[in-house]
Amino acid sequence: MCKVYVVGVGPGDPEMLTIKGARIISTAEVVVGWSSVVERFRDIVGREAKIRILTYRNQLQELDRALHEGSKIAVLDHGDPSVSDFQFLERIREVSTSHGCEVEVVPGVSSINYVLARANLDLSSAIFVTMHVRADESELFKELVHVLRCGRRLVVLPPPDERGVSRVASVLLEHVGDREVIIMERLSYPDEKVVRGKLSSFLNYVNTDLVAMVI
Amino acid sequence: MCKVYVVGVGPGDPEMLTIKGARIISTAEVVVGWSSVVERFRDIVGREAKIRILTYRNQLQELDRALHEGSKIAVLDHGDPSVSDFQFLERIREVSTSHGCEVEVVPGVSSINYVLARANLDLSSAIFVTMHVRADESELFKELVHVLRCGRRLVVLPPPDERGVSRVASVLLEHVGDREVIIMERLSYPDEKVVRGKLSSFLNYVNTDLVAMVI
Repeated sequence: MCKVYVVGVGPGDPEMLTIKGARIISTAEVVVGWSSVVERFRDIVGREAKIRILTYRNQLQELDRALHEGSKIAVLDHGDPSVSDFQFLERIREVSTSHGCEVEVVPGVSSINYVLARANLDLSSAIFVTMHVRADESELFKELVHVLRCGRRLVVLPPPDERGVSRVASVLLEHVGDREVIIMERLSYPDEKVVRGKLSSFLNYVNTDLVAMVI
Repeated sequence: MCKVYVVGVGPGDPEMLTIKGARIISTAEVVVGWSSVVERFRDIVGREAKIRILTYRNQLQELDRALHEGSKIAVLDHGDPSVSDFQFLERIREVSTSHGCEVEVVPGVSSINYVLARANLDLSSAIFVTMHVRADESELFKELVHVLRCGRRLVVLPPPDERGVSRVASVLLEHVGDREVIIMERLSYPDEKVVRGKLSSFLNYVNTDLVAMVI
């Protein structure tokens, strides 16, 4: 029986991995993931295990290769697979199913749990929007404004480029006025950074790639 | 320096604890929590450590006692502290601050991450409502109907009694019609249970205390 485990490895700090996740990674025959994520856990990968590094271009081919190389495969996923990674998960399910492999999602600590803890917010008072997806950006901005009008705080993963925060700030400033915002970067890493201010003060902000906004 | 760690211990399966959580629990001078949660991790609590079991009646006194008994305190919290436990977290912060103790939230895997994985849903398509809070129940039901009209799927922790599911089903049936619902009980435990059907088929349902609904 062939099985693919999609393991949520947590927001950054390798200690935020679960015991179950560690057990699966250390006993897998093939370990698959983006290089930044795999590097974090290379120490616990078994000596005999093969490693397949995904890139945006070759991800489907590399997943396919991994499925030929073993029957216990761990795909490492930043944070939790059910938070902002549905497109990646869909691709894994498709390729795995075509090989007759079962898929099990192993939940992890998502970056959002970390953001909520740092912002002193509960998930029951927030709505989450991800812009880390392939989609028409103007539709994503519409969604942002729509859900903000539902009366909850908003947790956003801005578009994954260095002007993501400033573009979100600009659109929200126009549609809902100048609200307070918290910008969080590289949470749970040694150089994490939390900045607070009004939307209008982030119009020229340049962010790193691990960033979240709370509005 | 006195420090209180509020450790999210995951949804049930002890293997869903993080490595960081395990390290803090095994080195704490005092371990505090509801008995069902503390029992799950008694094996990793240090030999010299004191254990304080909370009940709904004595929680403030027991927290206070724990703060007199040590300077490194682990409060174990089911799931993740930032998901549905803001009232508990508030009490811990108050008591700790009055003792001059710093509080650190150590995120864990929430039951909601588990529910999303099982329902094949992404957090960015859902809104979360908890009814595990002390509040006017009719206001909570209004919130439920309000957020369901925001156009996303709804993940609900129903009121914590055996008729919680049936009361939620009844209110939603009246206000939004007969929709599909998934009932999930005791997720990640060996006896977990997932049932699907229409709201109208759950009007006489009797649930256990670890239950979530996806609508």
